[in-house]
Amino acid sequence: MRKRAFLYGAGVTATGFLCRRAVHCSVTFAFKGFLTRMARLVMKFGGTSVADMDRIRNVAQHVAREVAAGYHVAVVVSAMSGKTNELVGWVRDGSKMYDTREYDAVVASGEQVTSGLLAIVLQEMGIAARSWQGWQIPLETSDAHGSARINRVDGHNLIEGFEKRGEVAVIAGFQGIHPESGRITTLGRGGSDTSAVAVAAAIKAERCDIYTDVDGVYTTDPRIVTKARRLDRVAFEEMLEMASMGAKVLQVRSVELAMVHRVPTYVRSSFDDPANPGLGTLICDEEDIVEQQIITGIAYSKDEAQITLRNVSDKPGVAANIFMPLADANINVDMIIQVVSDNSTTTDITFTVPAAEFERAKVLLEEAKGGIGYASLEGATDVVKVSAIGIGMRSHAGVAARAFKALADKGINIRAITTSEIKFSVLIDEAYTELAVRTLHALYGLDKA
Amino acid sequence: MRKRAFLYGAGVTATGFLCRRAVHCSVTFAFKGFLTRMARLVMKFGGTSVADMDRIRNVAQHVAREVAAGYHVAVVVSAMSGKTNELVGWVRDGSKMYDTREYDAVVASGEQVTSGLLAIVLQEMGIAARSWQGWQIPLETSDAHGSARINRVDGHNLIEGFEKRGEVAVIAGFQGIHPESGRITTLGRGGSDTSAVAVAAAIKAERCDIYTDVDGVYTTDPRIVTKARRLDRVAFEEMLEMASMGAKVLQVRSVELAMVHRVPTYVRSSFDDPANPGLGTLICDEEDIVEQQIITGIAYSKDEAQITLRNVSDKPGVAANIFMPLADANINVDMIIQVVSDNSTTTDITFTVPAAEFERAKVLLEEAKGGIGYASLEGATDVVKVSAIGIGMRSHAGVAARAFKALADKGINIRAITTSEIKFSVLIDEAYTELAVRTLHALYGLDKA
Repeated sequence: MRKRAFLYGAGVTATGFLCRRAVHCSVTFAFKGFLTRMARLVMKFGGTSVADMDRIRNVAQHVAREVAAGYHVAVVVSAMSGKTNELVGWVRDGSKMYDTREYDAVVASGEQVTSGLLAIVLQEMGIAARSWQGWQIPLETSDAHGSARINRVDGHNLIEGFEKRGEVAVIAGFQGIHPESGRITTLGRGGSDTSAVAVAAAIKAERCDIYTDVDGVYTTDPRIVTKARRLDRVAFEEMLEMASMGAKVLQVRSVELAMVHRVPTYVRSSFDDPANPGLGTLICDEEDIVEQQIITGIAYSKDEAQITLRNVSDKPGVAANIFMPLADANINVDMIIQVVSDNSTTTDITFTVPAAEFERAKVLLEEAKGGIGYASLEGATDVVKVSAIGIGMRSHAGVAARAFKALADKGINIRAITTSEIKFSVLIDEAYTELAVRTLHALYGLDKA
Repeated sequence: MRKRAFLYGAGVTATGFLCRRAVHCSVTFAFKGFLTRMARLVMKFGGTSVADMDRIRNVAQHVAREVAAGYHVAVVVSAMSGKTNELVGWVRDGSKMYDTREYDAVVASGEQVTSGLLAIVLQEMGIAARSWQGWQIPLETSDAHGSARINRVDGHNLIEGFEKRGEVAVIAGFQGIHPESGRITTLGRGGSDTSAVAVAAAIKAERCDIYTDVDGVYTTDPRIVTKARRLDRVAFEEMLEMASMGAKVLQVRSVELAMVHRVPTYVRSSFDDPANPGLGTLICDEEDIVEQQIITGIAYSKDEAQITLRNVSDKPGVAANIFMPLADANINVDMIIQVVSDNSTTTDITFTVPAAEFERAKVLLEEAKGGIGYASLEGATDVVKVSAIGIGMRSHAGVAARAFKALADKGINIRAITTSEIKFSVLIDEAYTELAVRTLHALYGLDKA
C-alpha cells in the first residue's frame, strides 16, 4: 500500500511525473516557513552524462527543471567517462598487488572533479549549489577499500543546505570515508548508483532518478539484440539479478539498498531533451507489476574470469584454503564447480572471479599453493556468463531446461551452470555471447514485434 | 650560527650530503627504540617530475635513496604536469566568475592522484608508505580559496607514521582544509612548494629538498639566455624577490615560510640519476654567502595583465573603490601608476594583476563602474615584467639607472617601473622579453664565461 500510495499519490504516473510538484512548489514559495518541508529528489548522472563540459551543462538543465518543479535536489555524479579507467590503469601500472586504500584515494578524484564542475555550472545558471565529497557529508563505509559497503549516510548537512541556503547538493558519487581510519573509500565500479540510493534513503527522498546513457532497463543489451524492448517496470528482485548478472545499468548494491529501503528508483536517459524528458523504467515492488512474464530479461557478463585448479587433494578444509585468501582480499568468487578426477583422491576445482581481480587472484593462489596442494592453475578470461531472469520462473517448471537444449542446438558448449529461484546462468566461450543471448531472447518471447 | 651548524654539522656540504646519514641509519636500526629520533627530510616533486608512471617510479628511487640513508621522509607531490591546467580549463569553461571553493575541490584532485600513485609505487619497492590529503594531515588554511594561506600544519599524524610504522608520508601538495567550513582549499599555483616548506617546519625536518625540472636557481631563465649560470647559493631575501618576480622555480610563499622558519631549502633536479644526484642551489641566510654580487639574477613574468582606467574622477576614496573589490576577490594588484590627465579633474590609473585574474578583474571593475566613475577600461595581456634582483643593490647607487639607459638604447619602451631595496622591475611589451632579459643579464656581468 505504501508503495502504491507513492506511485499514484505523488503523481508518479507514466505521463505526469511533475504535475503535483508544480503545485506544491508554488504553495511553498507563497507560504515560506509555514508549510511542511519541500519534497526531495535524488538525481544521479553517470560517466557518459558528465563526459565533458557540454554534457555537464546538459545535466544542469535537468537539475534546473526539477528545482523549478519545486524539489530540493541532491545530484550524485560519477567521474567523466574514461577518467576512472585512466586512473585505474595508472594504479595497475604502479603495482599489480596495489594497496586498495591508495587505489581509493586515486580513483575517488574523478568524482571530486565532476562534483565541483557541476556546482560551478549550476551557480552560473543562478542556482545555489555546492559540492560534497564523501568525507564531507559524511558517507561512512566499511574499510573494504575498493568495494566498501555503506554503513551510514548523515543526511543532516545536506538537509541543512536545502533548508537554510536553498542549495542543490552536488555529491561526488562512488566515494565515502572509513570513519575510524579517516581514509577515503570507494564503493566499487558503478558505486555512484549506490551512493545515490543511499543518499535518497538518508534524506527521505521521494524518488531516486538514475540518469544514464540508455532510456531504461531493456529485456537485454540492445547493442547485440536489435529486438530488445524497454521495460516500463521491473521488480526490485529481478533488477537485483539483472544487475548481478552484468546488466550494467545499475550497480548490484544500489538495487539491494533500494529494495531494503523501498526507494522508488527510476532509470532514465540523460540524453533526453531536458525540457521534455521521455520515459524510463521504474524499479518497484513485484505487486505493482500487472503483466508478469516468465522471463523478464537476458543478461550477460564478460567481466568474468575462470580459474581451474587441477589435482587438488580431496581432503577436508581444502576449499577454505582456496577461498579464504580470496575472501580476505575482497575478491568475490561466483560459480564454483568441483569435479572428482579419475583416481578419486584428487579433484579439479573450477570457479569464476571478476576479470578485474584475475591477476590478484592468481598471485594469491600461487602464494597459497603450499597450503592448498594443487598440481597446476589454469585460467581463462575469454568466457562469458549468460543469464535469464524472471520472477515467473518460480511458478513454471522446465524453464532452464529449454535453454540448455536451445543452446546445444546452436553448438554452444556450456562450461558451468548455476541456478536460483528466479534466474539461471551458463558460463560459455565468449565468442558465442551474441548468439547465446539472441537465442534465449527469442526463446522466451522477448523479441519486439 | 644556528644555520652554519646545520650546514656543516649535518653533513650538508657540496659533496657530502649523505655521509652522516648513512652512519646514523645503521645505529638507529641496531638500537631501535633507545636512540633519539631519526632525522627527517622533506622532498618535494613538481609536475614534470611526476608527469607519468615512469617519472613517478624515478621519484620513488630518489625517495628510496634517502630512506636508505636513514631519513624519515615526507614527500610532497604536485599534480602530473598538464593536469592542473586541464582542470582549470574546465572550471573556466563552467563559469568566468567561478566559485573558488568549487575551483579548489576540482583542482586539488590532481595532487590526490599523484600522492596515491607514488605511495603505491613505493610499496611496490618494499618501502612502507601512505598518502595524505591536506584534510587528512590536517594542513589548515585560511578560507581564501584559490590562494589560501597556511595557518597550521599538524605534524602529529605524520610523525606517528614515521615512528610507529616506519612509513614514508606521501603528501598531496597544494591543498589544505579550512577547518571551520570543512572545505578543501588550495594554495595557489606552485603551492606544493609552500606545502613542502610548511610540512618541513611542522615536523622539524633537517632540510627541504625541492626537486624540479632544473638543477637549481639560475641567474636567469636558461631557455632565453644560454649564458645563464646556476647559483650555488641564494639568500632567502633574494629568492623571495626572484620568486615574486616570476622565477617559477619556487612559489613566493614557500620562500617566505622558509625564511621565517629558517628551513634550509635545496633546489635540485629530479632528472638526475637517483643513485648519483648532482648539485643544486641552497637557499640560505645572506651571511652564509661569501661572494655577493650586486645583481644576483634577472627574472621576468609574463603572467601579468595591465589594466588602465581612463578619466577616473580625481577625488578622495576613488582608489579604495577601485582596489577594494579586487582585494575582496583575492586578486593581487601589483604595479600602480596614476597619471593626472590634461584637464586635471580626472586621472588615468594603470595597474597590473595576474593574467589569470584578468577576466575576473574586468568583470568586477565593470560592476564597480558606478562607484568609481571612469570613462573607459583598457586592458593588455601582451606585457611582461622584467626584474633585476640583488642584495648588493643596497650598498650601490645607480644600479637601476644603468638598466633604464641600456633598455632605452635597445629601443625598449618602459610602461611602468617599481623599485624596492634589493630589486627593480620594469613593465614592457611582451615582444621585447628576451632582448630585455639578455641585455640586463650581460649588463650586470652575469653571463657565463
